[in-house]
Amino acid sequence: MSASPEKRQRFINVFANIRDELIQHFANEGMPDDGQEWFRRSLDHNVIGGKLTRGLSVIDTVEILLGHALSEDEYRRVATLGYTIELLQAALLVADDIMDRSVTRRGRPCWYTISSVGSIAVNDAFMLEQAAFYILRSHFRNEPYYADVVDLLLETKYNTDAGQLVDCISEGSTDLSAFSLNKHCFLSKFKTMFYSFYCPVLLSLNYVSTSIPGIATPEVFSKVKEIFIPFGEYYQVQDDYVDCYYTPEQMGKIGTDIVDGKCSWLIVTALTHANSEQRRVLEECYGRKDAEKEKRVKEIYDELDLRGNMLNTRGIRLSW
Amino acid sequence: MSASPEKRQRFINVFANIRDELIQHFANEGMPDDGQEWFRRSLDHNVIGGKLTRGLSVIDTVEILLGHALSEDEYRRVATLGYTIELLQAALLVADDIMDRSVTRRGRPCWYTISSVGSIAVNDAFMLEQAAFYILRSHFRNEPYYADVVDLLLETKYNTDAGQLVDCISEGSTDLSAFSLNKHCFLSKFKTMFYSFYCPVLLSLNYVSTSIPGIATPEVFSKVKEIFIPFGEYYQVQDDYVDCYYTPEQMGKIGTDIVDGKCSWLIVTALTHANSEQRRVLEECYGRKDAEKEKRVKEIYDELDLRGNMLNTRGIRLSW
Repeated sequence: MSASPEKRQRFINVFANIRDELIQHFANEGMPDDGQEWFRRSLDHNVIGGKLTRGLSVIDTVEILLGHALSEDEYRRVATLGYTIELLQAALLVADDIMDRSVTRRGRPCWYTISSVGSIAVNDAFMLEQAAFYILRSHFRNEPYYADVVDLLLETKYNTDAGQLVDCISEGSTDLSAFSLNKHCFLSKFKTMFYSFYCPVLLSLNYVSTSIPGIATPEVFSKVKEIFIPFGEYYQVQDDYVDCYYTPEQMGKIGTDIVDGKCSWLIVTALTHANSEQRRVLEECYGRKDAEKEKRVKEIYDELDLRGNMLNTRGIRLSW
Repeated sequence: MSASPEKRQRFINVFANIRDELIQHFANEGMPDDGQEWFRRSLDHNVIGGKLTRGLSVIDTVEILLGHALSEDEYRRVATLGYTIELLQAALLVADDIMDRSVTRRGRPCWYTISSVGSIAVNDAFMLEQAAFYILRSHFRNEPYYADVVDLLLETKYNTDAGQLVDCISEGSTDLSAFSLNKHCFLSKFKTMFYSFYCPVLLSLNYVSTSIPGIATPEVFSKVKEIFIPFGEYYQVQDDYVDCYYTPEQMGKIGTDIVDGKCSWLIVTALTHANSEQRRVLEECYGRKDAEKEKRVKEIYDELDLRGNMLNTRGIRLSW
């Protein structure tokens, strides 16, 4: 998933102009200096620092579809389009960290944990989201695909928020009857697939539609969705596997799905195959902040050989 | 600002369909029942209960512009358009209450204070905002003014968020040099004017543009803005006056602008006219959670006769 450092740096270089344009807009509207300065810090802290894969994949996809490398001007324009999804992502992460009470993100303190910020981060998340649409208006308002792309970004954000909702209200639940493969599929699709895979590719398809007629049709869009739904599930199952079986060194953080009571593919599958005694242990131990109970859940996973079943097809099987 | 109970009830009756449509959309997408139920509770708690003046003013303005009462079908359609701004308002209030640590809103507990909700309210605020755009897509996607109205709602939300930012970061400040008439004007315009006055009227102008050609032009829009900028300032100055001089019984809550260190018109004007001793007292006492200091600030306001100057033109004068 990671791009080369040069590729990443070239993309990052475009951001300074986007940030300055966002600040300048409010400066022109008379926003006091402290407001401008605050927004600048929020943009710098929250947009840059991650893998930027979603924005970069817009560029990659456009290059593949056009069949040639982009000129400098065209690169800047496609990168600007790519930053709309990165700004939405920034909004999502700021809000997610507040709700999860996370401490670090991308190796730095989470935005809301900075003492001067606190709950103002809620408003900053909204501003990051709205900045995506400002950039889109400012650069793409006259394109024939403008309304479609605004709708795409709005739908993407709405879907991701809906996925977050289902994830948040399951979390901490110790009522395992709420976990099902259906819920896991909904989460994979809504929380991850739309904004990580579907949206970047659709941004690209819309962008090239002015030079490749007939490429941005409802039929193509539903084909893209059809491909990415299982892809999103695969990605989510991998993520669940990593959370449970990678060491903190391998993963860069400590896995907490079991103690947090997350609707992971592992617990969903375990519940499908557990006998009544194993189910009793899972009900007693899942979603508890207790290392001993976490260990007993992992023991049940081992008894059911979830790990072996996930790995035995040189990948992760989605169903038994 | 208040509509008759019958008028309000007729508008409220439309909401049940909007709410059900929002839930049904996610039900069709496979959202688990607990997610649907949560979203329903959030919509019921946060959209209905206030004065609904913004949504109602869309209906009033359309009726005035068309010059006749609306048929039942047309009423429902205009009310649906009006609910887009009410949904944005709901999102703003949920977020505002989290940031201000408020306890009650519209005579009920703030959404985030409900024990099962907590910080999930952050995500609920985003969903309420996005629900406005979903309703717009679902009912107005094929109208010629669709892209303009999406842009209007997006700009309205972005501006209001920017106003909220400036308000939040001034709050609690004891450095009075940050307060100026410019900042007060920015707050009036961005935090209140756009979403309370400008947006409802522009929604109406766009709506009637299909039957009254030439009514929704950039020239008309800037005239509307020109009218509403001083109107928004007047409204904000009144609000500041009420906060300081109304009794809790008159106002329905306790005024806290002085102890919260808000950029009120009163402190801005007092600082313009204070002598050095009065300024020293204001610097020592403003923005402190201390009833005695609050009283001393009000004494300075009396020495400068702010109240008399606000009232002596059968209204409130904006400048001396």
